[in-house]
Amino acid sequence: MRMQRRLTHLGATTIALGFLGLTTTAHGAANGDRSADVRRAIVAKKHAKNVILFIGDGMGDSEITIARNYEKGAAGRLAMDGLPLTGAYTTYAVKKGTSDVPDYVTDSAASGTGWATGHKTYNNAVSVDPVTLAPLTTILEKAQQAGFKTGNVTTAELTDATPAVLDAHVSLRGCQGPADMATCPNETKQAGGLGSIAEQTVEHGIDVLLGGGRQRFAQTVTGGPYAGKTVIEQAQALGYDVVTDQAGLDAASPGTKLLGLFSTGNMSLEWTGPGAAPYPGPDATTCTRSNPARAATEPHLADMTARAIELLSAKVKGDKAANRGFFLQVEGASIDKQDHAENPCGQIGETVELDRAIQVALDWAAKNPDTLIVVSADHGHTSQIVEAQSASDHSPGAIATLVTADGQPMVVSYASNLHGRSQSHTGTQVRIAAQGPRAANVVGVTDQTGLFHTLSLALGLE
Amino acid sequence: MRMQRRLTHLGATTIALGFLGLTTTAHGAANGDRSADVRRAIVAKKHAKNVILFIGDGMGDSEITIARNYEKGAAGRLAMDGLPLTGAYTTYAVKKGTSDVPDYVTDSAASGTGWATGHKTYNNAVSVDPVTLAPLTTILEKAQQAGFKTGNVTTAELTDATPAVLDAHVSLRGCQGPADMATCPNETKQAGGLGSIAEQTVEHGIDVLLGGGRQRFAQTVTGGPYAGKTVIEQAQALGYDVVTDQAGLDAASPGTKLLGLFSTGNMSLEWTGPGAAPYPGPDATTCTRSNPARAATEPHLADMTARAIELLSAKVKGDKAANRGFFLQVEGASIDKQDHAENPCGQIGETVELDRAIQVALDWAAKNPDTLIVVSADHGHTSQIVEAQSASDHSPGAIATLVTADGQPMVVSYASNLHGRSQSHTGTQVRIAAQGPRAANVVGVTDQTGLFHTLSLALGLE
Repeated sequence: MRMQRRLTHLGATTIALGFLGLTTTAHGAANGDRSADVRRAIVAKKHAKNVILFIGDGMGDSEITIARNYEKGAAGRLAMDGLPLTGAYTTYAVKKGTSDVPDYVTDSAASGTGWATGHKTYNNAVSVDPVTLAPLTTILEKAQQAGFKTGNVTTAELTDATPAVLDAHVSLRGCQGPADMATCPNETKQAGGLGSIAEQTVEHGIDVLLGGGRQRFAQTVTGGPYAGKTVIEQAQALGYDVVTDQAGLDAASPGTKLLGLFSTGNMSLEWTGPGAAPYPGPDATTCTRSNPARAATEPHLADMTARAIELLSAKVKGDKAANRGFFLQVEGASIDKQDHAENPCGQIGETVELDRAIQVALDWAAKNPDTLIVVSADHGHTSQIVEAQSASDHSPGAIATLVTADGQPMVVSYASNLHGRSQSHTGTQVRIAAQGPRAANVVGVTDQTGLFHTLSLALGLE
Repeated sequence: MRMQRRLTHLGATTIALGFLGLTTTAHGAANGDRSADVRRAIVAKKHAKNVILFIGDGMGDSEITIARNYEKGAAGRLAMDGLPLTGAYTTYAVKKGTSDVPDYVTDSAASGTGWATGHKTYNNAVSVDPVTLAPLTTILEKAQQAGFKTGNVTTAELTDATPAVLDAHVSLRGCQGPADMATCPNETKQAGGLGSIAEQTVEHGIDVLLGGGRQRFAQTVTGGPYAGKTVIEQAQALGYDVVTDQAGLDAASPGTKLLGLFSTGNMSLEWTGPGAAPYPGPDATTCTRSNPARAATEPHLADMTARAIELLSAKVKGDKAANRGFFLQVEGASIDKQDHAENPCGQIGETVELDRAIQVALDWAAKNPDTLIVVSADHGHTSQIVEAQSASDHSPGAIATLVTADGQPMVVSYASNLHGRSQSHTGTQVRIAAQGPRAANVVGVTDQTGLFHTLSLALGLE
């Protein structure tokens, strides 16, 4: 069991002042102003050599606070909290067949299309125009065309909405593998379309693809030059090393494109604990920082991030792109999925793991300051920290009480849908934070589509 | 009825680009970077002459988004969205008798004590130490001691928690008037204490006090030199003009201290509309932008703000403080109260009115740039924008469907407590935004107690 601790007064004060940029440990000390620090964070250099984008799926401000309270204590700070430039962005989708009629609660496909292409689209659409259904160019495609190395990493299936918006164009997000095309009959290869998300993913020539979803890539291609092969075989024919565990990931070499498929479906959760339930809910508890269903050979998101950065930044003789820089997206996907499932320990474990991945990138960027790092979410979600519960006053949904790093109870409520049903995304604006060249573009209130321009400007592509 | 409109594509694009700092109306235009704008927003001047602090009570990111969607449309922008420097802050309280054991969901008293004094305290405490119960010096008191004019404006009772944390010190927020002291027997005047919040409020010599709560000031003082008088009579004896309507507010003169008591309890709501109710909830509707229960003579928050600024900034011959500058707090109190009450139109109307008040301050600051303006909330709250509802998938709490400025339905769910019970505050981090000298101190992730230092640094008081 982990140690529980109470904050010391000195500890809390030191942390708070650290964020005021003070170097002493007493409140009221002179020169507590951070203006110079914030100004310094606005990098004068126009372009970034590298861009690393972290998407916490469903990671609204409430989800961040829940994870912080649990893991670091209320006065503690996550790695993602340390990004120096911050703002909020709006996340709405638009109705299908329109470019301008809002749908106030977005899914990951429409929101991902927003940040990946700079265009609003409808829920379920993967980087296609909401009216014409024409493909919309993504930031990954632009980066690739300009000679940057590219990477796409997720804890979901690689064909799930967030990774897919970067490397696929399809009218419905469900069309993940060649055998999943029933709802997209006109988009199959044999119909003259671009094919399933899995096929499009391996055809893009992306340097590093890491995540789950092996089941999609094991399906057999039904049209085009690779008909009769599985998508994995297609990937191998296109020059990919295909690996399925940490050892394979470790052995990969920077000269060869890498497809890591570490799970048949979504990757395994990091943590386990009681599901939320109607009042009075389960007894107060800590989370179990492991998951018996997770194989020891399955890499963690921080491991995948470290290896992706290593491979994308490696110098390779005669490979111009290797010196040009890279664009890498890293998604913590199951924050959302466990919020849907009313599973606070699952949700927090995934948020903490995403934060570990962010720390990996921050450490790397400390030695490679020409790197833009952005951390945001695609949409808000359900979970709320609420007051102490009683028979007369309690959440009408499901609750769980977690004992945090402070040794104190935190009540988390899931009540955007009936208990046992998939909880709802929410339409709230969400946090965006950044450091490095062009990071100042995240400050203030922007729209999710603005992130495409922030990334594009940073890479010198507009 | 107000006109409903659909966003034009051009309109949406222009707005989005406006926030990227572009001067053209086409996506992808060159020079879309806002780094220089953000850098310019970091005012080199060390001190502000004036500070105007806006607290949207319970105005979390979700509440802001709900108001924006309704009033401006999803692609529109509120006045508060335009503040150039932004961050998030943590809002937790501590347990009574400790300085360091967190209570993850704060009330307005503990959170107000945090931003007003720089110290954490327990829920229900008004600017007293959580262990010793000793008074904690507030930013208003510091400003006053340094010779600044001061003002405190709210749509709640002037003795309610948020205004009270600036000018009173009491162990329980309920001790609002001399007749409300049953739970604070040792803090009455006759017991040698500081007296009720109402008494302390008028004894502070604050230049402008505007809000509701006349019932507290109509109570009779029971101890000390003013025993036998009402608090209103005490205020008059201390040199206050006491006014009760817009005409009185208009007639006030800058040379005399002003106590405006515009309602017996909380001030009247701006808007009305159907309360949220369990699925399927009331029919989709727009809000009514008026309240038949509101007297025409009752000033709006924007009016009070305009007048407070006018009075506090007026030059008065021989009055040094009149030239020194001012500290003004303005609270939109009933965002919180209507969130508690599952009343979306009430909540939105109050948010929109707070935004009007912020616009008043922004307009004034355009001519008085040595002014720090800060907009934040004291804590998050209940309301969430959720997906379309159905018999099988709907909020377990109360919902209402509002037809927004976009002409589209927005479903708002209240489900942090049982329907009909007071909804719960939430523990999420909330937005803080600022412009003017020292505004950069709000960027990043800070704690609510840091706001005290931001204000204090801006006024040159630390």
